[in-house]
Amino acid sequence: MKHLMSVKSLTRQKVFSLFKLATKYQQNNSNKLDKQLFVANLFFESSTRTKMSFTVAQKKLGLDVLDFSPQTSSMTKGESLYDTAKTFESIGAQMLVIRHSSNDWMKEIQSHIHIPIVNAGAGAAEHPTQSLLDAYTIYQEFGYLEDVNVVIVGDIKHSRVARSNALLLSKLGANVYFSAPPQMTDTTLKFPNITIDEAVKISDCIMLLRVQYERHEQSLATTNFLEKYGLTIEREKQMNDHAIILHPAPVNRGVEIDSHLVECDRSRIFKQMTNGVYIRMAIMSKLLNKWGLINENFT
Amino acid sequence: MKHLMSVKSLTRQKVFSLFKLATKYQQNNSNKLDKQLFVANLFFESSTRTKMSFTVAQKKLGLDVLDFSPQTSSMTKGESLYDTAKTFESIGAQMLVIRHSSNDWMKEIQSHIHIPIVNAGAGAAEHPTQSLLDAYTIYQEFGYLEDVNVVIVGDIKHSRVARSNALLLSKLGANVYFSAPPQMTDTTLKFPNITIDEAVKISDCIMLLRVQYERHEQSLATTNFLEKYGLTIEREKQMNDHAIILHPAPVNRGVEIDSHLVECDRSRIFKQMTNGVYIRMAIMSKLLNKWGLINENFT
Amino acid sequence: MKHLMSVKSLTRQKVFSLFKLATKYQQNNSNKLDKQLFVANLFFESSTRTKMSFTVAQKKLGLDVLDFSPQTSSMTKGESLYDTAKTFESIGAQMLVIRHSSNDWMKEIQSHIHIPIVNAGAGAAEHPTQSLLDAYTIYQEFGYLEDVNVVIVGDIKHSRVARSNALLLSKLGANVYFSAPPQMTDTTLKFPNITIDEAVKISDCIMLLRVQYERHEQSLATTNFLEKYGLTIEREKQMNDHAIILHPAPVNRGVEIDSHLVECDRSRIFKQMTNGVYIRMAIMSKLLNKWGLINENFT
Repeated sequence: MKHLMSVKSLTRQKVFSLFKLATKYQQNNSNKLDKQLFVANLFFESSTRTKMSFTVAQKKLGLDVLDFSPQTSSMTKGESLYDTAKTFESIGAQMLVIRHSSNDWMKEIQSHIHIPIVNAGAGAAEHPTQSLLDAYTIYQEFGYLEDVNVVIVGDIKHSRVARSNALLLSKLGANVYFSAPPQMTDTTLKFPNITIDEAVKISDCIMLLRVQYERHEQSLATTNFLEKYGLTIEREKQMNDHAIILHPAPVNRGVEIDSHLVECDRSRIFKQMTNGVYIRMAIMSKLLNKWGLINENFT
Repeated sequence: MKHLMSVKSLTRQKVFSLFKLATKYQQNNSNKLDKQLFVANLFFESSTRTKMSFTVAQKKLGLDVLDFSPQTSSMTKGESLYDTAKTFESIGAQMLVIRHSSNDWMKEIQSHIHIPIVNAGAGAAEHPTQSLLDAYTIYQEFGYLEDVNVVIVGDIKHSRVARSNALLLSKLGANVYFSAPPQMTDTTLKFPNITIDEAVKISDCIMLLRVQYERHEQSLATTNFLEKYGLTIEREKQMNDHAIILHPAPVNRGVEIDSHLVECDRSRIFKQMTNGVYIRMAIMSKLLNKWGLINENFT
Repeated sequence: MKHLMSVKSLTRQKVFSLFKLATKYQQNNSNKLDKQLFVANLFFESSTRTKMSFTVAQKKLGLDVLDFSPQTSSMTKGESLYDTAKTFESIGAQMLVIRHSSNDWMKEIQSHIHIPIVNAGAGAAEHPTQSLLDAYTIYQEFGYLEDVNVVIVGDIKHSRVARSNALLLSKLGANVYFSAPPQMTDTTLKFPNITIDEAVKISDCIMLLRVQYERHEQSLATTNFLEKYGLTIEREKQMNDHAIILHPAPVNRGVEIDSHLVECDRSRIFKQMTNGVYIRMAIMSKLLNKWGLINENFT
């Protein structure tokens, strides 16, 4: 693994090896690096959670973090993603973490950049580190992923999380279902679409998505989205005893989920965030090791 | 003291114990922490001084700083303060420093966040760390606060500094007066209101406030504010020999104070900034110690 | 050298001593400082490259970096550059790196700030660290600067790089020419103006400038700028075998240079960025040493 661009290139073996390393980091604080390594976080789209999660992961590994904000940069002078990435490589970045609104920025950039790259979000197409932390959270819960029923609920169409998660979880043996209103389905993805009322009954894991207001023409708040398609308090009572709730956040409280359920017993929403730090530590240290920048003992 | 939310909960004893620790930090550079602790600065309102003062204080203590800018974050997706704070707790922040435009965000957030919180500004209501550094600066000057005449001058109505300072200073034994034009008084605060010409004569300390242009309907620059209500060069000559000038900054030069007085002999305006770093070091290390995150020796 | 404000105050001897130190830093990683020193980067204008280059240089030296973004600061409350600089000095910054749109902010600020200041860009007037890294890149290439033919091409009028480079390079013995379209010349600078077709033939170094779109009334993209005044593939073929191409970036691909030439064999564009880090390390450590903040051995 020289880059982490997509879940497509991940084998089962690689995924479980990442889980194992994440668990190790979670159980005992890692030794910090004894040399200086620079990583640059290039987030061309707004982010709190993912960017800060990467930052904490980087600082726990002892990396030096370069924080790029396009709002205060030469991007306002029209520079391309490639030229920005090449700039950071030139000034000494030894790894790049990139989020960009393009679905396939990875192709544009990969061939001429000679340092490891982590995809922290690509348009509506890919979000591999989120998928890995979600799968890790389910795996932590049940001890396996084989035949676990996961229903991904809500705004499938605009969600890079839905896309990456469906691919990764089915590769890991889970049974993946979607539950989306008509205007939010994606017919290019071949997973069964069920109602939210079916979903709560069969699922071991309900994975809610944020409704992407800004990409829908009509106001969804006024359409009783929660009652029609979301996780209400009544529906939560129908769930299996052992079943858990995931959400990549930020949550629209009262839209895709009743606000009172965000921190209920079966919610793993904030645990996902905690897990994200350790998964990202594992991903980055594996990549740095692959490129010979840190040694095997460290990972 | 598990959080620093308000000056109201501070006893005299606690305040002087903070002053003592601040002095210790000021006199000899602290030992830096030998373990990794993360603190997140969540400034939902613009700030240079306070945010940077906290940052320097944190780095001097050896803390790892997470810097949150709502302008480049998911807050643009409508996430609440609580969810943002909970996110930072989940990804590993062990202390939060928060500034927010709400007057009582502390209530919303306190009960469900299980790490120490420092109030770095709450709407027009509270600014406890500024009050502590102001009181510390006066205390440093005179060696006591009992019966010191402090006149808080200017835009009382919109100032969280005025509110917090009046409460804290009177608790510490100072005689607090206000000197505000009619449209800038606050009748809920029971301190005597005197003219600026009386103020300069009786005060041991003149504490000027920034006129909050953006909250007044009429342009104040054109109303001879300085001549009518501000500290002119003529008025400064009327002050007692030992009297000092404070201002929380940023200063509107030529509005509440003549520009030539900003760095005059009796001005402590930039000294306040220097003191702020040490007061904030003291506050944060006391809180971290209270939560068992650092040991007594360190403070 | 107590500040680096302008190339005007640099002697040949000082410049070569900076080159020597930059080479030392480039060849073996510097020892990092064993004490805490704070430097503040105050960039009132947008920047990726320069700001990040300074940041990497600072972290390589082991300095603690304070990052100021006017977009999220009290500058929105109308504070002056001087008051901002004085604030950072007061809270503990021991060096300032400043970029500002004013041509002569250095005069306003220098006399009352008692810490070293590095000019990272002043309006259309000065950009001394860029000039030093450009001269260093040429010097690295040829081993000398005496009689090297350098042609600075393009938007001379709006370029602080052109101005600083012409002064510094001629002081170091290079033969400096300009090649600018009529609306982009600057008649106050007394260097010969030649055509781009002459330029490619005589130059040892072609130094392209970014066309400052935002400062020109007419759209330049539609005026065949590249064909008329820029470095096309055909013109590149006319260059001397040993001649090199420089550009301070960000590059307008297809405007001042054909996109295919940005990473061609004779391009040193990304090498300039790499060199910038080491030059800035050298500048900052020389200043800190001059002020007694670090010792001679360190530099």
